[in-house]
Amino acid sequence: MLTTGLSEPAREDLCADAVVWASQHGLVYGAGRADLPAALVHAPLAVFPVAYPKASYVKAQAAMPIFNLLIDRISRDSAYLQQTLAPAAEFDDFTANLLRIHQETLSLRETRADKQLTLGLHRSDYMLDELSNTLLQVELNTIASSFGCLSTLMTQLHHYILQRAGCSDQEVQRLPHNQVTADLTSAMAAAVKAFKVNDAVMVMVVQPNDNNSYDQQWLQTVLWEKHRVRTLRCTLTQIAKEAELHESSGRLTIWGRTVAVAYLRAGYAPEHYPTAVEWQGRKMLEQSNAALCPSVAYQLTGAKKIQQDLAAGNTLERFLSADEAKLMRKCFAGLWSLDNLEDPETKKVLKEVREHPERFVLKPQREGGGNNLYGQAILDRLKDPKGLAAFILMQRIRPPINRCLMIREGSSFEVDSLSELGIFGAFLSQGSEVLINKQAGHLVRTKAASSDEGGVAAGFAVLDSPSLQD
Amino acid sequence: MLTTGLSEPAREDLCADAVVWASQHGLVYGAGRADLPAALVHAPLAVFPVAYPKASYVKAQAAMPIFNLLIDRISRDSAYLQQTLAPAAEFDDFTANLLRIHQETLSLRETRADKQLTLGLHRSDYMLDELSNTLLQVELNTIASSFGCLSTLMTQLHHYILQRAGCSDQEVQRLPHNQVTADLTSAMAAAVKAFKVNDAVMVMVVQPNDNNSYDQQWLQTVLWEKHRVRTLRCTLTQIAKEAELHESSGRLTIWGRTVAVAYLRAGYAPEHYPTAVEWQGRKMLEQSNAALCPSVAYQLTGAKKIQQDLAAGNTLERFLSADEAKLMRKCFAGLWSLDNLEDPETKKVLKEVREHPERFVLKPQREGGGNNLYGQAILDRLKDPKGLAAFILMQRIRPPINRCLMIREGSSFEVDSLSELGIFGAFLSQGSEVLINKQAGHLVRTKAASSDEGGVAAGFAVLDSPSLQD
Repeated sequence: MLTTGLSEPAREDLCADAVVWASQHGLVYGAGRADLPAALVHAPLAVFPVAYPKASYVKAQAAMPIFNLLIDRISRDSAYLQQTLAPAAEFDDFTANLLRIHQETLSLRETRADKQLTLGLHRSDYMLDELSNTLLQVELNTIASSFGCLSTLMTQLHHYILQRAGCSDQEVQRLPHNQVTADLTSAMAAAVKAFKVNDAVMVMVVQPNDNNSYDQQWLQTVLWEKHRVRTLRCTLTQIAKEAELHESSGRLTIWGRTVAVAYLRAGYAPEHYPTAVEWQGRKMLEQSNAALCPSVAYQLTGAKKIQQDLAAGNTLERFLSADEAKLMRKCFAGLWSLDNLEDPETKKVLKEVREHPERFVLKPQREGGGNNLYGQAILDRLKDPKGLAAFILMQRIRPPINRCLMIREGSSFEVDSLSELGIFGAFLSQGSEVLINKQAGHLVRTKAASSDEGGVAAGFAVLDSPSLQD
Repeated sequence: MLTTGLSEPAREDLCADAVVWASQHGLVYGAGRADLPAALVHAPLAVFPVAYPKASYVKAQAAMPIFNLLIDRISRDSAYLQQTLAPAAEFDDFTANLLRIHQETLSLRETRADKQLTLGLHRSDYMLDELSNTLLQVELNTIASSFGCLSTLMTQLHHYILQRAGCSDQEVQRLPHNQVTADLTSAMAAAVKAFKVNDAVMVMVVQPNDNNSYDQQWLQTVLWEKHRVRTLRCTLTQIAKEAELHESSGRLTIWGRTVAVAYLRAGYAPEHYPTAVEWQGRKMLEQSNAALCPSVAYQLTGAKKIQQDLAAGNTLERFLSADEAKLMRKCFAGLWSLDNLEDPETKKVLKEVREHPERFVLKPQREGGGNNLYGQAILDRLKDPKGLAAFILMQRIRPPINRCLMIREGSSFEVDSLSELGIFGAFLSQGSEVLINKQAGHLVRTKAASSDEGGVAAGFAVLDSPSLQD
């Protein structure tokens, strides 16, 4: 909206303003230069916020505490998780390994159930569907939900840019308050406090050389500045090799410090477990009494297969009240399992896929993004029925297309784009007692309409923020 | 002091903390990568503050308003400037050009004397001399005094690091408050306000692709955020080619905006004037009614030749009261002109140079750092008397040596080091009325003791801050 009506010099000035502000305020990525590892570059970003219907935004916020509860309740139903995910595990070693650890630690965790802290920092991602005029869930992330801190900064950047552009106060106030950094760190600090061990730390489990480490580092900085909680960064390999687990108590220590919270920004993709050692590290976390963010059960609950199962049958009603289930169901896009290709429902939808492949996405069940299939690629994949159970078929959402002025690595360009809204959730429980359950701010990612993949880090999308419209 | 007594892992953690904090908070440089111009890297920095005698620091602060006044008074004595600098101009085209512009604009500026705004943002640099136990002035910068904003951030970084290192509150409180960014931008805003033209802007005159642009950009960001004053960045070439000067009023406009303040972060070195066009741009500034920071007269007043003249004779007493002159004189290191090699005083000091070259520095008179001669290089240069008038001979100050843990481009190393203290000054006058005259915070730069050159930007020194000791 704002990109039109500005003179070319004014646009250039605002682009320069955005790059400078982002670089000054830590809205940055690692530049990924082997010859200069300390180099940074501003995060890819949209210069102006994207117009977004206020009603949809408010609905997504209201849904988040229910999603938090839903995840927690499903995660406690071990039999349901094992049973529902077994078919996927046949074709997916990654899910199989998670299920194995989940099974092997069941009894251990049951004995600690009363005292066990569970920390959930989720993000539910949506797209507007223009056809149905509804907000549909794309993904529910229960592990390593990222961009919370950079998104908090994006809101501040858009404040700055709108003021620099001479917009009215009314226009500036359409940017909703965004408190992700504060809310996530408060929940982490609450978990550390509830752990009740002096000087216990948070361990952030990371991948080495992650270019998005500044989004993570902001959590560490604020956790220290506001709550005086220290964070140790380590890899799953280091957990396996350098941490100690005290078997009877479950106390986990590393480098001489007791771990109150293990916050995973790694472990969501098969490549994070190159050897058995990393799986051993993951299992040690699961055996510990630390508040896990997430537990294996939380991670499994976020599997696309579970999402599909909730969308398909009456499972949702087993975990939520009728009213809550109804509200949730409105957010679900069409999702179909490919476990049984002879199932009449499956046959019916596959017929539609063959006629209109552009209405669908074929998604692998495991986490980490990438490798979604569209159009002809779906048809090609369907020709070979082997391993199809590891995929989920999903209704392709058709979001509105907006012009977006983007900047990447200092260069600006204007493209047709579509936007994805993420709502963060924070949840903390001890045994069956819920200590925190709230929505925790938002993230908007905008990508070129011609690009079929998400993932700002992969360079296909930019950080954005919503300008709420009545 | 703090570098000892820490375990190796603790030191490594604090180094990592420093790099992350600096990168998050805009304590950065341009990385200078042609293939990724938007890339940044944390500024080179000292992990811990350097111990500094409180009495010396307080004395330097107290001296700053007197220096501000001294510069202003000298700058108004055109005959003195022309006469004192004429010998240097013979060997130095740069000084000659400044003197020419100064002469050519004399009558013009005299007609506006009552209303003319003058903005001085100076920095007086000192070193402790261990031998005499005094603080001696190294340089008085009247143009493009840099690192003010990064130094403000350095103080905040050292606060953070001392707290992370578990230092006592008492230890943390030894870091003096540092308000350079706020004070410089307040003085700029006051100049714009006193200019009394709606929507007038500040022009920041810069060199293209300056890696230290973030120090400059912080002034722009804060000037906007706190004072709602816009800054246009342009080069001397752009001034010459794209600005318009309204001859009768002196009003300078560029890109449709009236210039209230011209703040120079370029123009202090011969290479900033590759052609006559840049000198033409500089003259246009001088002909305008904008508040110049600095005017050519201010810049000339900062010449080392003037510093030498003030140190040598009774000139100081012409511009200051006896008490003020006495205070100033205590700050002056020994300085000798080489205008007249037959002068008995000069002969005497040259004899000492030949016996003890290690006690002296041979400095070119023009601004911009670099090319100082030491030791044998002084003796070699003295062999050829031609052009020696363009140099100033200076007592070499012997500062205390401290161990310093430095980080550059993400890598840390510990070295013997020496530190230079800079005190910023802010001065604003309209005609003969002084509107602002204050010290405006500090800068400490620390360099490896084995390096003979300053200049953080050149990679020889790091940003630091003082921990005041009784």
